[in-house]
Amino acid sequence: MNLSAECIVLKLYDFGPAANSKRVRMFLVEKNMDVPIVELNVRDDEQFKEPYTSMNPFHCVPFLELDDGTVIAESISVCRYLEELQPEPSMFGRTAVERATIDMWNRRVELDGFMPILHATRNQVPLFAGRVVPGTRTDLPQLPAMVERGQEMLHIFLQRLDPQLAGNQFVAGDEVSIADITCFFVINMANRFEMGVQERYPGIHRWHSEFSERPSASA
Amino acid sequence: MNLSAECIVLKLYDFGPAANSKRVRMFLVEKNMDVPIVELNVRDDEQFKEPYTSMNPFHCVPFLELDDGTVIAESISVCRYLEELQPEPSMFGRTAVERATIDMWNRRVELDGFMPILHATRNQVPLFAGRVVPGTRTDLPQLPAMVERGQEMLHIFLQRLDPQLAGNQFVAGDEVSIADITCFFVINMANRFEMGVQERYPGIHRWHSEFSERPSASA
Repeated sequence: MNLSAECIVLKLYDFGPAANSKRVRMFLVEKNMDVPIVELNVRDDEQFKEPYTSMNPFHCVPFLELDDGTVIAESISVCRYLEELQPEPSMFGRTAVERATIDMWNRRVELDGFMPILHATRNQVPLFAGRVVPGTRTDLPQLPAMVERGQEMLHIFLQRLDPQLAGNQFVAGDEVSIADITCFFVINMANRFEMGVQERYPGIHRWHSEFSERPSASA
Repeated sequence: MNLSAECIVLKLYDFGPAANSKRVRMFLVEKNMDVPIVELNVRDDEQFKEPYTSMNPFHCVPFLELDDGTVIAESISVCRYLEELQPEPSMFGRTAVERATIDMWNRRVELDGFMPILHATRNQVPLFAGRVVPGTRTDLPQLPAMVERGQEMLHIFLQRLDPQLAGNQFVAGDEVSIADITCFFVINMANRFEMGVQERYPGIHRWHSEFSERPSASA
């Protein structure tokens, strides 16, 4: 791919405390990449004001602005684009099989783990009242059923993930990948619900303890 | 990338009536690719029997088996791998910016649209009693709150998507992509809930009517 014919990054818009912002910041440290960051205070609804509301009508952070004005939103899409700009160290895989395997694990972690516990969090934590759906301000109530079902679904996922981490150093196998970053935030959210990860899922607990020691974990 | 050094596809395991199986079959028609298919009757729990339970411990279809035994599960990961084997016609983009833009739209459709209406469906349709979480057989009850919240979340997504399809022929812009395939099944599921897509979202209705006429739609 001829990168000189591609757009390059102008700015990353994010909000430090948000889990999805932390995912991209962690990725940047793992990649040893430096991107100019503009913080939008999403708790003060900055993302609903211009020019940001037009840049990302889905009103979520983080998003990337390229030098031609193109906006790339969605944390994993942002990371994918940055990986194309600087392929090493690889976080999405170097061959078609590696890329598909990492994508599979990242999807399992995200769809079966991240999404249920994200919705449980947004339906429980008082800070998210009136904003249970990401990027919205609505009168949809926080539903206890979403909190309960989210934790039940997460336990199903953790039961399936534990054997993988009992037999492999990282989520997708022998090498660190984007799936580890996604999973790190799943376990951090799970720990706020006191789901007994340490006692019930020893493989996951071993992996999370090790992963927490990486320099990127404090990004 | 040197494809001769990569594994090639041996078999696709799927189940015709399942939405995720249809996504991959539709992709194959759009790509004009032919892959040997083995059908597993997931309603009779074939995916819980050996060798399938070891091939995909997440017990979902479809999944791909490569000639060295590697298994790639997750419908989008399967499609990504097939696109690497045969890049044209492109469904994931030809440049880094195209790939990131398509990935962003596919994620918005999947996380904000597909997941909520999938969970609404599994919590409502009698066929899914005892199997509300994909790839499981549990005693978790079907929750009316998940059905209601799923539809509320889908309406938020459709309101955001409609302007994009009022101004563009396809979900990610001027060209057909994997995001259209994902979205096609979102609208099909929405229509079962009689969510008034035709009246409320004219841009989406125009796109869905046109997309339904493609040969791949009857795959």
